[in-house]
Amino acid sequence: MKKTKQKLNLNRRNFLSGTATLAGLAATASIVPINISNANHKEGSKGLPGFISWKDRNALIIHSDKGIETHRSAIGESLITPNRNVYIRNNMPTMTDSQIGNRNDWKVSIEGVKNPKTFSLGQLKKLGHTTIATILQCSGNGRGFFEHKVRGSQWKTGAAACVFWTGVPVKAVVDACGGIDRDSVFMTSAGVDHKPTGLDPKKAMVERSVPKKVYSDAMLAWEMNGVPLPNAHGGPVRMITPGYFGINNVKHLGKVAFTKTESTVKYMKSSYRISPIGKKGSQYPSCWEMPVKSWITRPTDETGTVKSGKVQIVGVAMGGTRKVKSVKVSIDGGKSWKRAKFIGPDLGKYAWRQFALETTLSAGTYNLASLASNGPDKQPELRMENRRGYAHNGWKDHSVNITVV
Amino acid sequence: MKKTKQKLNLNRRNFLSGTATLAGLAATASIVPINISNANHKEGSKGLPGFISWKDRNALIIHSDKGIETHRSAIGESLITPNRNVYIRNNMPTMTDSQIGNRNDWKVSIEGVKNPKTFSLGQLKKLGHTTIATILQCSGNGRGFFEHKVRGSQWKTGAAACVFWTGVPVKAVVDACGGIDRDSVFMTSAGVDHKPTGLDPKKAMVERSVPKKVYSDAMLAWEMNGVPLPNAHGGPVRMITPGYFGINNVKHLGKVAFTKTESTVKYMKSSYRISPIGKKGSQYPSCWEMPVKSWITRPTDETGTVKSGKVQIVGVAMGGTRKVKSVKVSIDGGKSWKRAKFIGPDLGKYAWRQFALETTLSAGTYNLASLASNGPDKQPELRMENRRGYAHNGWKDHSVNITVV
Repeated sequence: MKKTKQKLNLNRRNFLSGTATLAGLAATASIVPINISNANHKEGSKGLPGFISWKDRNALIIHSDKGIETHRSAIGESLITPNRNVYIRNNMPTMTDSQIGNRNDWKVSIEGVKNPKTFSLGQLKKLGHTTIATILQCSGNGRGFFEHKVRGSQWKTGAAACVFWTGVPVKAVVDACGGIDRDSVFMTSAGVDHKPTGLDPKKAMVERSVPKKVYSDAMLAWEMNGVPLPNAHGGPVRMITPGYFGINNVKHLGKVAFTKTESTVKYMKSSYRISPIGKKGSQYPSCWEMPVKSWITRPTDETGTVKSGKVQIVGVAMGGTRKVKSVKVSIDGGKSWKRAKFIGPDLGKYAWRQFALETTLSAGTYNLASLASNGPDKQPELRMENRRGYAHNGWKDHSVNITVV
Repeated sequence: MKKTKQKLNLNRRNFLSGTATLAGLAATASIVPINISNANHKEGSKGLPGFISWKDRNALIIHSDKGIETHRSAIGESLITPNRNVYIRNNMPTMTDSQIGNRNDWKVSIEGVKNPKTFSLGQLKKLGHTTIATILQCSGNGRGFFEHKVRGSQWKTGAAACVFWTGVPVKAVVDACGGIDRDSVFMTSAGVDHKPTGLDPKKAMVERSVPKKVYSDAMLAWEMNGVPLPNAHGGPVRMITPGYFGINNVKHLGKVAFTKTESTVKYMKSSYRISPIGKKGSQYPSCWEMPVKSWITRPTDETGTVKSGKVQIVGVAMGGTRKVKSVKVSIDGGKSWKRAKFIGPDLGKYAWRQFALETTLSAGTYNLASLASNGPDKQPELRMENRRGYAHNGWKDHSVNITVV
């Protein structure tokens, strides 16, 4: 059990102590070239890969055919990010309708329970369902602010979305199987083995273990913001692990197992480990719990000229696995802070809240920053330097410079 | 003030007493022909009118080019109805981008306040904003269940949606104008006068008065479910009157006035009046407050074969201007009832809640009904007969017959 109780306080890792203070000020990542080469998917309309040609091209930044980011201003101010604007991060190709077949016949097997069973989606829909709002966020969101040469999509803020999921609580599924194996330590979710796609199952399987406790709020989701879960987002069923990074929300879900040990596939063992620059290995913490984080969405250079006078500074704040408690906003790069107010309904602790601060700005340049707290934890000033640029929640890099005229 | 205090208890109108008991059992409205003739808009792709060619054809029932309904099963189970599935009911043609011009330059004038002012949308965005979830519902939703020959789209359940709106509270706008005229009785909202469309302003203006008190929760909205308010839904700005029927949520908003008398335009004076069959006139109540209502969304004949065993009965329930308190579900046409549970987050009193009842059904036929209460009011069994088929909240007509195999 020790491993699962490991405190994931990302702000205070030991390996950080030497590097954090050396971290640079607001990094200016270079402009990322559009790259839709090497696509497993045909190119679709509007310059988007074919499998997401239904998305809004104007809302998106294309890093590659598997890494497509939402513009800072395009997550929307209505709390929930519209599906058409939600980012894409795929390790494996999105399955097609013909590979999936009849959606209600899709199978998910449950193991590590008293009575292991395989359910069709149709059967899962009879086990009771609910709706939750959670934040889906790529482990590498914010990677674009790092200054060392870090491999992967150079996400700034837009590998994140707040989504309503509808599906069956894992609890209800487990109950229908007589309960969890007592000596299990992890909940391990596996994507389908990709037989239908012709890919090598050993290489193509995304399998992720999270601490067993996660199951109590987790869900097998078949609907996303009111529509059947799109293939591009892991349809017909995906795992939802509230408060945990995107990779744990396994797509095209084929199996949920309560296990004594972590999965040994690449995506668990070596990838998604938060290690110091220059080091790697499975001894480093996995991308599990998301830390407290916030960023400003308006005004930015994307939202047009800012005229002097009253200005509404707006953004989103998340608490990770705890409810976000407060947000402070600075207009002078962190020299002084004012408390912002939360606006709109509270969708639960796993959703983000929108914050707003009204202020008056005269002509000039400003650095706007936000700093969220969930009570025990608050955003650090600087990023936690790490090899792959994971879990960035430093407020300084996420600030925006604006010119008021 | 007397008029505004008139109690709109739609269940107990006097003119009803003679007819309600005569109302038929579950009406079987005839199949509505698809009709996209006489369109002011070019026909778009997928058989949808051009101005909503971005919508999901499969989610929609086309009554006419101005009346497009959401399938019972397509409002989604994630609380919020996706924009692509939201119904359309237009009295006037949707304005085009070129008629609207620069969205931030759109003007809304505020009258009947201490300091009347005209704001651009850009200025409104600086007055502070928030997000609310409300139900948008056409006054005629449920008209398709009436048995007398009633003019208008034969809506069943799908002229309704639950939507996140983002905009500025009317309160904040009024504060910026020094407050409301003390002797005003109504808040009167007018659509743009349609000069840009070349239509006769006298005929083309939608102007609606509601009791002044409505302003305290009302909003001028520029965003719908996270995207700029689509033209088809009244962009760039519309009035949102929470708890009040759709018609009061005036599109392409040009003016908000606090007035002593009701507007005298057709859409206020003679249309949208709830009058006995065969009678009409402005002495009858206007379509203002929505009554408590619910309906089942799954299972229905749209959602596929129902197999015997455990069945989840799911639907939506709204309280009107009060919070919905409880929902009961019947599987035997109202002979017996069981209390359903609410699922998913509570988005506030003006949003609907999703309810679910788990039951076990053997092979046979069932009539599934739901009955919501907001405390003081509950759904009546029968519809309130009225000339234009407005405000239907009788539970019997809204029930569904299913066959379990």
